[in-house]
Amino acid sequence: METMTDLAVQMQELGRRARAAARVLARATAAQKNAALEAMAEEIVRSGTAILAANAEDLARGEASGLNGAMLDRLRLNPQRLEAMAGGVREVAALPDPVGEKIREWTRPNGLRISKVRVPIGVVGIIYESRPNVTCDAAVLCTKTGNATILRGGSESIRSNVAIAEALGRGAARAGLPADSVLLVGTTDREAVRELCRMDRYVDVIVPRGGKGLIETVVTHARMPVIKHYDGICALYVDAAADLGMAERIVVNAKCQRPGVCNAVETVLVHRAVLPEFLAGAGEALLARGVEIRGDEEVCQILRGRATPAVPEDYRTEFLDLKLAVKAVGSLEEAIAHIEEHGSHHSDGIITRDSGAAEEFLREVDSATVYWNASTRFTDGGEFGFGAEIGISTDKLHARGPMALEELTTYKYQLRGDGQVRG
Amino acid sequence: METMTDLAVQMQELGRRARAAARVLARATAAQKNAALEAMAEEIVRSGTAILAANAEDLARGEASGLNGAMLDRLRLNPQRLEAMAGGVREVAALPDPVGEKIREWTRPNGLRISKVRVPIGVVGIIYESRPNVTCDAAVLCTKTGNATILRGGSESIRSNVAIAEALGRGAARAGLPADSVLLVGTTDREAVRELCRMDRYVDVIVPRGGKGLIETVVTHARMPVIKHYDGICALYVDAAADLGMAERIVVNAKCQRPGVCNAVETVLVHRAVLPEFLAGAGEALLARGVEIRGDEEVCQILRGRATPAVPEDYRTEFLDLKLAVKAVGSLEEAIAHIEEHGSHHSDGIITRDSGAAEEFLREVDSATVYWNASTRFTDGGEFGFGAEIGISTDKLHARGPMALEELTTYKYQLRGDGQVRG
Repeated sequence: METMTDLAVQMQELGRRARAAARVLARATAAQKNAALEAMAEEIVRSGTAILAANAEDLARGEASGLNGAMLDRLRLNPQRLEAMAGGVREVAALPDPVGEKIREWTRPNGLRISKVRVPIGVVGIIYESRPNVTCDAAVLCTKTGNATILRGGSESIRSNVAIAEALGRGAARAGLPADSVLLVGTTDREAVRELCRMDRYVDVIVPRGGKGLIETVVTHARMPVIKHYDGICALYVDAAADLGMAERIVVNAKCQRPGVCNAVETVLVHRAVLPEFLAGAGEALLARGVEIRGDEEVCQILRGRATPAVPEDYRTEFLDLKLAVKAVGSLEEAIAHIEEHGSHHSDGIITRDSGAAEEFLREVDSATVYWNASTRFTDGGEFGFGAEIGISTDKLHARGPMALEELTTYKYQLRGDGQVRG
Repeated sequence: METMTDLAVQMQELGRRARAAARVLARATAAQKNAALEAMAEEIVRSGTAILAANAEDLARGEASGLNGAMLDRLRLNPQRLEAMAGGVREVAALPDPVGEKIREWTRPNGLRISKVRVPIGVVGIIYESRPNVTCDAAVLCTKTGNATILRGGSESIRSNVAIAEALGRGAARAGLPADSVLLVGTTDREAVRELCRMDRYVDVIVPRGGKGLIETVVTHARMPVIKHYDGICALYVDAAADLGMAERIVVNAKCQRPGVCNAVETVLVHRAVLPEFLAGAGEALLARGVEIRGDEEVCQILRGRATPAVPEDYRTEFLDLKLAVKAVGSLEEAIAHIEEHGSHHSDGIITRDSGAAEEFLREVDSATVYWNASTRFTDGGEFGFGAEIGISTDKLHARGPMALEELTTYKYQLRGDGQVRG
C-alpha cells in the first residue's frame, strides 16, 4: 500500500472540507450567498490592519529577494486598494445569481417533463500568481455561484493571501455559510500544485491563471477538467477597404492603451494596397507613441530604418509591451491563414468597410472573440456586460473567452414523471 | 532534440490531416454536410460486401482468440445490421444542424453588437472498444456538427472499423467534403492511444467510451479536455409516501428491462416504514424475474434466506446484471446521503407522492439526471428527444448526461462595431 506524504494528507483534508462546504453552498439561496458576500466585504475592511501587516511582510520579503518595482507594485495593498477590493465584492453581490435558472424545459410524448437546470460546479481550484486581489476576486465569484474554492496563490503573496482568505471565511461563517467555502493552500511547496491536480475526487475543475510554465504543469498533471487561460497573440487585419482613420484609432488603442494585457494587439496585417497610406498615418502615430515596429521587408522599406526587421518568432510572440509586428498581405484569405497559423485563438479583428469581407473573417477565424471595426481590448467580462470575470479562457470547451458567473456553473436534468417506465 | 518514433510521426500526420479537414468542415453548410451524410449512408450499403468480408476476418480472429459468444455477437455485422447502420446515418442527416445558431445577441451601451454563435469544436478524438457500429455512429454525429473525427476502435474490430471508416470517407469525398473528415487510427498498438492524448495541437477533445482501464489511461495522459463516460451506479429511493404499485413497476423496469446498461438501477433504498410491503410486492416480482437481491440485515430478515447479505462493496458496484442491492433507510436525508456517498452521479430517482420530498431530492442529489416517479432507463439521447447521442457523460463540464449534437459544438463571440476603442 502506498503511504501518503504529510503534504498529501493535508491536501486531501483540504479537499474533503471543500467538498463538504460545496454541498452546503449548493443548497444556499441567492439571499444567503449575497449576505455572505456583504459580510465578506465587511470583513475585508474590518481586518484591514491585519491584512496590511501581512502584506507588509510579503513586501519586505519581496524586496529582500529582489522583486522589481512593477512586481512589488502588483503585490502592494493599501487602504484604498482594500476598499476597492471590498467594493468589488459588493458589486458581485448585486449581480443576478445564475444558479437555479431553467435553461430549457420540455415534455416528452410519454408525459415525462424534462428540465435542464443551472447548478454550481462544486469545488473550483484556482491556481494563480502574484496579485493578492485575485484571492478575493476569484473566491467571491465562486461563492456567488455556490461553488467552494480551493485557492493556491503565488509564494510572493502567501501571507497576504492567507489573511484575505481568512477574512472571507469569517464573512461566510457570519452569514451562516461554511467558513470552508473559501480555502487557501497554506504552503508554498510546489508539490502542492501537483497534489491538487491529482485530487479529482474532491476538485471538479482547475482554473490556472499565470505564466505558461504554471499552466503546463497543471495540464500535464491534472486528472480533472482544466480551463486554461493562456496568452493572447491577437491580430488586427487592415483590409484594402478599411477606413484608415478608423484603422489608426483602433490599432493605436489596441496596442497602446494597455500593452501588458492579453487582449492587446501584437500583430497587424495590412493589405498591400493600403500599406503606404496606413504607415503614413497609423505607422507614424504608433512610432510617436514609442511603439517599436517589427516589420516585414515591405514595411521596413517604407519606414526606412525606423522599423526593426521582423523575424518569424515575432509573429508568434505575445510582446506585452510597446512592440508590434506589422506585415503586408495580399488578400483577406492570406490574413486569415496567417492568424490561424500564428495566433493563439484569443481575440482577432478585421477593419473594413466591406461587410462581405467582414462576415467572412468573423465566420472563418477560429478565435474566442472575433471583431469587425473595434479594438480587441473589449475582450473582458466587464466590457461584455457580464459584471465580473474570473479570466479569459483560451480553451474551447465549457468556457471560451470571458469567463464569468454563468461559466462557473454546470447543469443537471430533472425529470418529473407519473410512473413512466421504458418499453 | 527528441526523435519521434515512427508511430508518433504517423499519428502527427493523422492529426495534421484531421485539422485541415476540420477547417473545411467548419465552413460547410448544413446542406453540404447532409449531402455528405446521405452519401455516407449509400457508401455503407454499396461497400457491404467489403465490410462484411473485413468483419468475417475479425470474427475468425475473435473466435480463434477465444472471445465469448456475447462479445462475438457485439462484433458481428450482417446485411441487416449494415442497413440499420445506414438508416441511422440518414436519421442524423434529418436532424437540425446546431452550428451557426445565435445563442445570444446583445448590444453594449457603446454600440458594440455582441453575438454568441454556435461553432464546431474542431477535431474530436473518440476512443472506444469492441462494437464496430460506434465507428459509424460517432463519425456521423461529428460530421453533422462540422467536426473532423479521429477514431480509435478496439483491436477486435480493427478490420471492420477500417472498412467502415473508408466507406464514410468516400461518402464525404463524393459530396465534396474532405475524405479526411473521418480518420481511423489503423494500428492496434496501444501506444497510439497515449500518442493521441499528447496531440493537443491537433485534437480539441477526446471522448473515451469503454471500460474503466481505458478511461483511466486517457485521463492520465490527455493534455486536452476529456469528456468521460464512466459507469452508472444508479439508485432509486422508495419513499414512505410512495405509491408502491408504481414503485414496483419502476424498480422492475429499471433493473430488468436491460440490466447490462449504464442507466439500469443497481441500488434500491427503501424507507423502513414501507419496507415489508415493498418487499412483498416489488421484492417478490424481482425474485420471480431471477434478480439476486443483496440485502441489508432488515431486508434479509424479511426475505428469509431468499436474499444474499450485502457487503459494503455491493453499494459501490455497477452489477450490469440481474443483481440489486436493497437497503432500508430511515429518512429522505439518509437516502440522499447514501446516494451522494456511494453513487456515480449518473441517474438517480425518488418514488413518492410527496412533492416536497421529491423537490428536495431533485434539488439536492448532484447527478447528471435526477428522476421523480420514473425509471432511470430514460437517461438516453433518444429518450430525451435529442435524436441521437454520442454517449452519456459522467463529467460535469461542457457536457453532462446525454451528449448529443449540441454538446459536440462550442461557441465564439462575434463583435461588430463602428470604430469602438477602449477608454
